[in-house]
Amino acid sequence: MSWRDLPIRDDLRGLTPYGAPQLDVPILLNTNENPYPPSAALVADLAEAVTHAAAGANRYPDRDADELRKDLAQYLGHGLLGANLWAANGSNEIIQQILQCFGGAGRTALGFEPSYSMHRLIALATGTGWVAEQRDPETFELDPARAVAAIERHRPDVVFLTSPNNPTGTAAPLELIEAVVDAAPGMVVIDEAYAEFFRPGTPSALTLLPGRPRLLVTRTMSKAFAMAGARIGYLAADPAVIDALLLVRLPYHLSVFTQAVARTALAHTAELLGTVDAVKAQRDRIVAELTGLGLSVVPSDANFVSFGDFADPHAVWQGLLERGVLIREGLLPHKLRVTAGTEDETTAFLDGLRDVLAKESAQ
Amino acid sequence: MSWRDLPIRDDLRGLTPYGAPQLDVPILLNTNENPYPPSAALVADLAEAVTHAAAGANRYPDRDADELRKDLAQYLGHGLLGANLWAANGSNEIIQQILQCFGGAGRTALGFEPSYSMHRLIALATGTGWVAEQRDPETFELDPARAVAAIERHRPDVVFLTSPNNPTGTAAPLELIEAVVDAAPGMVVIDEAYAEFFRPGTPSALTLLPGRPRLLVTRTMSKAFAMAGARIGYLAADPAVIDALLLVRLPYHLSVFTQAVARTALAHTAELLGTVDAVKAQRDRIVAELTGLGLSVVPSDANFVSFGDFADPHAVWQGLLERGVLIREGLLPHKLRVTAGTEDETTAFLDGLRDVLAKESAQ
Repeated sequence: MSWRDLPIRDDLRGLTPYGAPQLDVPILLNTNENPYPPSAALVADLAEAVTHAAAGANRYPDRDADELRKDLAQYLGHGLLGANLWAANGSNEIIQQILQCFGGAGRTALGFEPSYSMHRLIALATGTGWVAEQRDPETFELDPARAVAAIERHRPDVVFLTSPNNPTGTAAPLELIEAVVDAAPGMVVIDEAYAEFFRPGTPSALTLLPGRPRLLVTRTMSKAFAMAGARIGYLAADPAVIDALLLVRLPYHLSVFTQAVARTALAHTAELLGTVDAVKAQRDRIVAELTGLGLSVVPSDANFVSFGDFADPHAVWQGLLERGVLIREGLLPHKLRVTAGTEDETTAFLDGLRDVLAKESAQ
Repeated sequence: MSWRDLPIRDDLRGLTPYGAPQLDVPILLNTNENPYPPSAALVADLAEAVTHAAAGANRYPDRDADELRKDLAQYLGHGLLGANLWAANGSNEIIQQILQCFGGAGRTALGFEPSYSMHRLIALATGTGWVAEQRDPETFELDPARAVAAIERHRPDVVFLTSPNNPTGTAAPLELIEAVVDAAPGMVVIDEAYAEFFRPGTPSALTLLPGRPRLLVTRTMSKAFAMAGARIGYLAADPAVIDALLLVRLPYHLSVFTQAVARTALAHTAELLGTVDAVKAQRDRIVAELTGLGLSVVPSDANFVSFGDFADPHAVWQGLLERGVLIREGLLPHKLRVTAGTEDETTAFLDGLRDVLAKESAQ
């Protein structure tokens, strides 16, 4: 008996489950995690918060996560209040709720590809039609006029724009976001999962929220806050958007433990965001050194770098894996993507890559 | 700006967000929680498990939750293995994944109402058509011939059968479940959220799993395991069903903390299930005492009791609230539902109800 023998929806039959291989390799630079584990002080505070939450774990959690949403608003600033914030089990669940509410059968979502593939996959799972406009094949940038033309052509109910874009790395200028929101007949989601890694001077779409009730900005604690394991994504938008999402959210979706962990991590914001500067330094180092090696490199506002123009990227990926370094393949033709790690991890990647490329060119 | 001004899906416009009021009342007997908080020993073990998990919380969790699924299989028995199990953030997320995979636009789910309203609401959110067959209006039982006739009439892609049924309380006999599975052209979900509270001699649908790959049995740790705050639901089925759900599950949906909490609670199974006997004793006491008061009472295999044939159930609910006891109204016409609490909580409910009814009859 295989799943193919079961009466699943026809549009799912061509799928394979999403996800990079979870391999046991010494140096993991494949899923854009933050390389710095929580400090001993944060771990101790998490244990204390969880002990407190556990004492009442026989009761359902606060369904609206009011305190967490206030804390998230305070972190984001920009005059946002708890009523502007929403949280879920990872930004994937936020995206799913958005598409359940504003997409669905007979509706369409538009993305600018290559981009974060879960936008398309969650559109599929929620029955939302998916249309894609291609980014510039060399720079992966997006011309505002081209974006507006695509919106006018498709009249999508939901538009996704990832900034900085993943897997390429570059942020969207505010003029592009403004043009997209102005042109879009429906909701516009700016996926800012990596916003804390912006290069200096890059503004967030949060600055555009006032007066734009169809603009949604999603964030996550998986990257800058180094809490990928905790699964906390969130959204900033007009309070009316949050009220709409309440219609489709699963009741009590955020556990007492998730709420306690998120609030504890937010209480350690200064410490956790301290890792961001260290990661950005390694990101800039990767960009500089790969450029120095003569490789093509996409400019990055994130904690990862896409690089290369390889005839056989899998051979390079495999060579690095054999040297104990796992990076990501298969996201962009002829390219590979590496997460900026600690200084030592980044050194191991760069040394390994030099070694692999030397072996390749010697053949 | 209201959510009604936003371009939400038309079929959501009539909705209000699901959920009983979360009121600050001394005695909470409204959402079928287990009244016993985790013991000090369990809290200590949870803190230790969370401390361990926190040390690696910068990394994504095990996407497939393999160890947790093995632990769940061991708890359920019946020869089940980890490959037969699946877990998610509450059984609501399990139901959502089932409907995303086997329901969706152009497909239909059938329920036997009154029952757990989230089946219908998640069908709506996933774009699945919903058809309902009514249970017997007096006993809330379901005649197998009537169930089979409804299935043959509607040819649903998914059938939901809640056992014990919520909000009424009575379990489905195995003959009924077998008849439903035999007749159904698609998947059959037996929602056994309250199965640990079955009266003696009531078998679980788990006994029917071998050889029935379209039969799915959902469970939760919210009730018998007293972990409503932790949001852990799970499913037992043929491994092919789990493989199908992987196509729609959000990657990394279960946090490292949720997995650690669930496994720790399962390691305390004997202690936690010890609370079940105490709750069942209070449930049987409620049934006996309400019957003694001359009230109509639905027989219960769960941790709650539906009762009464009130002209004004809201007045009774309000009277109890004023006496510090919160129960559930609005689920069944002319009836109220009370969760079995501790002995003291149950006494407070029974004393309060006698007082309210005495005041009412004196008017």
